[in-house]
Amino acid sequence: MKRREFIKGVVPAAAGLAAASGLAAPAIAQNKRELKMVTAWPKNFPGMGVGAERLAKRITEATDGQLSVRVFAAGELVPPFEIFDAVSSGTAEMYHGAEYYWPGKSPAFNFFSAVPFGLTAAENNAWIYHGGGQELWDELSAKFNVKAMLVGNTGVQMGGWFNREINTLEDLKGLKMRIPGLGGEVLRRLGASTLSLPGGEIYPALQSGAIDATEWVGPWNDLAFGFHKIAKFYYYPGFHEPGTSFSVGFNKGAWEGFTPAQRQILQNAAAAENDYMLAEFNARNGAALKTLVNEHKVQLRKFSDDVMKEIGRVSGETIAELAAGNEDVKKVYDSFIDFRANAKEWANISENAYFDSRNLDYKYTK
Amino acid sequence: MKRREFIKGVVPAAAGLAAASGLAAPAIAQNKRELKMVTAWPKNFPGMGVGAERLAKRITEATDGQLSVRVFAAGELVPPFEIFDAVSSGTAEMYHGAEYYWPGKSPAFNFFSAVPFGLTAAENNAWIYHGGGQELWDELSAKFNVKAMLVGNTGVQMGGWFNREINTLEDLKGLKMRIPGLGGEVLRRLGASTLSLPGGEIYPALQSGAIDATEWVGPWNDLAFGFHKIAKFYYYPGFHEPGTSFSVGFNKGAWEGFTPAQRQILQNAAAAENDYMLAEFNARNGAALKTLVNEHKVQLRKFSDDVMKEIGRVSGETIAELAAGNEDVKKVYDSFIDFRANAKEWANISENAYFDSRNLDYKYTK
Repeated sequence: MKRREFIKGVVPAAAGLAAASGLAAPAIAQNKRELKMVTAWPKNFPGMGVGAERLAKRITEATDGQLSVRVFAAGELVPPFEIFDAVSSGTAEMYHGAEYYWPGKSPAFNFFSAVPFGLTAAENNAWIYHGGGQELWDELSAKFNVKAMLVGNTGVQMGGWFNREINTLEDLKGLKMRIPGLGGEVLRRLGASTLSLPGGEIYPALQSGAIDATEWVGPWNDLAFGFHKIAKFYYYPGFHEPGTSFSVGFNKGAWEGFTPAQRQILQNAAAAENDYMLAEFNARNGAALKTLVNEHKVQLRKFSDDVMKEIGRVSGETIAELAAGNEDVKKVYDSFIDFRANAKEWANISENAYFDSRNLDYKYTK
Repeated sequence: MKRREFIKGVVPAAAGLAAASGLAAPAIAQNKRELKMVTAWPKNFPGMGVGAERLAKRITEATDGQLSVRVFAAGELVPPFEIFDAVSSGTAEMYHGAEYYWPGKSPAFNFFSAVPFGLTAAENNAWIYHGGGQELWDELSAKFNVKAMLVGNTGVQMGGWFNREINTLEDLKGLKMRIPGLGGEVLRRLGASTLSLPGGEIYPALQSGAIDATEWVGPWNDLAFGFHKIAKFYYYPGFHEPGTSFSVGFNKGAWEGFTPAQRQILQNAAAAENDYMLAEFNARNGAALKTLVNEHKVQLRKFSDDVMKEIGRVSGETIAELAAGNEDVKKVYDSFIDFRANAKEWANISENAYFDSRNLDYKYTK
């Protein structure tokens, strides 16, 4: 007898007992169920793709295979930006992506992933878990038959790779840069010519001079891409994505059909992965930065305060416009902005002040 | 028949089947098992105590009660600093505490909680999960029959409450301050008279002038304590605890006796709580800081660079001495220090640079 058949053999009796006692049916008493998880990432894509695989493993192992998550890379079942619709309609039970991939559904989704000059990863977690963010997200997602939660974060991204220096606002005028989404809109308003390009087309475009600059993620992913071979200046910080959140979304009917124990397992797995993925970005970015600077002699450049101040002003304007005249967005925006005000003051006397103090010139040595 | 007996009634046959097939026994087929979790916290203590209760709930619910975690407040089963021994010996299956509570076992444990001028919460997660920290921790804990993992973090703590200003190193001389552990040792080397006091004795000591200053945690916990009523100056940043980690430790025999599914559930629950507790500190600290400053007119003070530079130098010396002549500590120290060097550079061009840019004077308004 095969193991699978063996398991099936004990189902009826045990399931009957469980039902009669009012207990949730135990793992062995239920049909093992496969959950299709569609993702926005190429297979095993560093960071996000690997995180999706780890999430699947966390769930499958914790349920002893009762819920077995099957991961579909971008395009395998549906194209990357259609994963939300696939889950909304029930074609798949789960997606693993980023909420700012579906601004067409509602611009409010941007706030649950990243907006220019918004929250860092830690601040975003605080808003979602303990600042009313999850409730607003649930309300929004429910309109599309989805229940979503946090599942990872890149941390602060880099400003990007430039083939020339950006010293003044004048240098942004006419700059051809690959930067999608709201960050692109902000730079467009400042005179840049921004566009979106799929991952595979960025390198040749930058190499040929068809574009002058591109943002991607951070040292870890950028080193793998090899941008240091074709662009001279590596700018920071990434004002456009100060802490990009990723999310796992469930078809709402599927979510409500899970047992309380299964829902707890799914929530624990998602939050665990939220913690683990950010930690991976931080660990690998630290190591990759060292390689870029020491081995590849990459020239790090900080955007000047003059440039950042104006980018900040235009970012604020751009985000505020999303909320104008749209009640759904306004509600999320107001909560986000209130939270951001407190978070900014707290960051200044905690992490920011600590980093400054730690930078004074003493050394910890081995 | 009582529910408990009913469940027991189905054990032998099903357990036999599972054993024969080599499958993990399903929930209903096992005795429901109570896990005693001893903690270092008063019942429902904000932050840590509440986190311990949430961890218990995450595990109990995810296993559908198969593993039912019973939380013991500090002193209920064993005194707070004896929880490690209780788990090591098997008196309890789990503890929820902080590794720097047992430096007597090995000073290496300090690095898995907090050391002066060490890692922030995010950096610590990166080191533990992806930088070799967990492996070193496992090796150390195994010597005491324990398997431990991360379960929460306070984030950057505050420097403390002072009844007079600290402008120069001279002001530290003779200062009577309640600050335990390595932070206390650092200030002692700089001429302060430091001591440890249990929570309940701090307020009267500061009120009567028996001490001049005390550190506690951060705005959320400090506001609840009411220190703003009796001390005038609130200093930052907390050099001594830049991101204090908490941990859940399992008796090693108990850990190895869990099924693979149970171990996955326990790991997911711990990592989820690690994410969730830090987020709570960040959310509540931001709100409490506003109350302290706006309503209670607390005077925030940043330690001067001169003071911090010297405190940093002495911190480095103090930590290095822990490692001198102790191979166990040296191994952990070397890994920690290497990781710290990269983390510091990465923080400077990511979060630190972002906070600075975000502080330029534009406002996001509603």
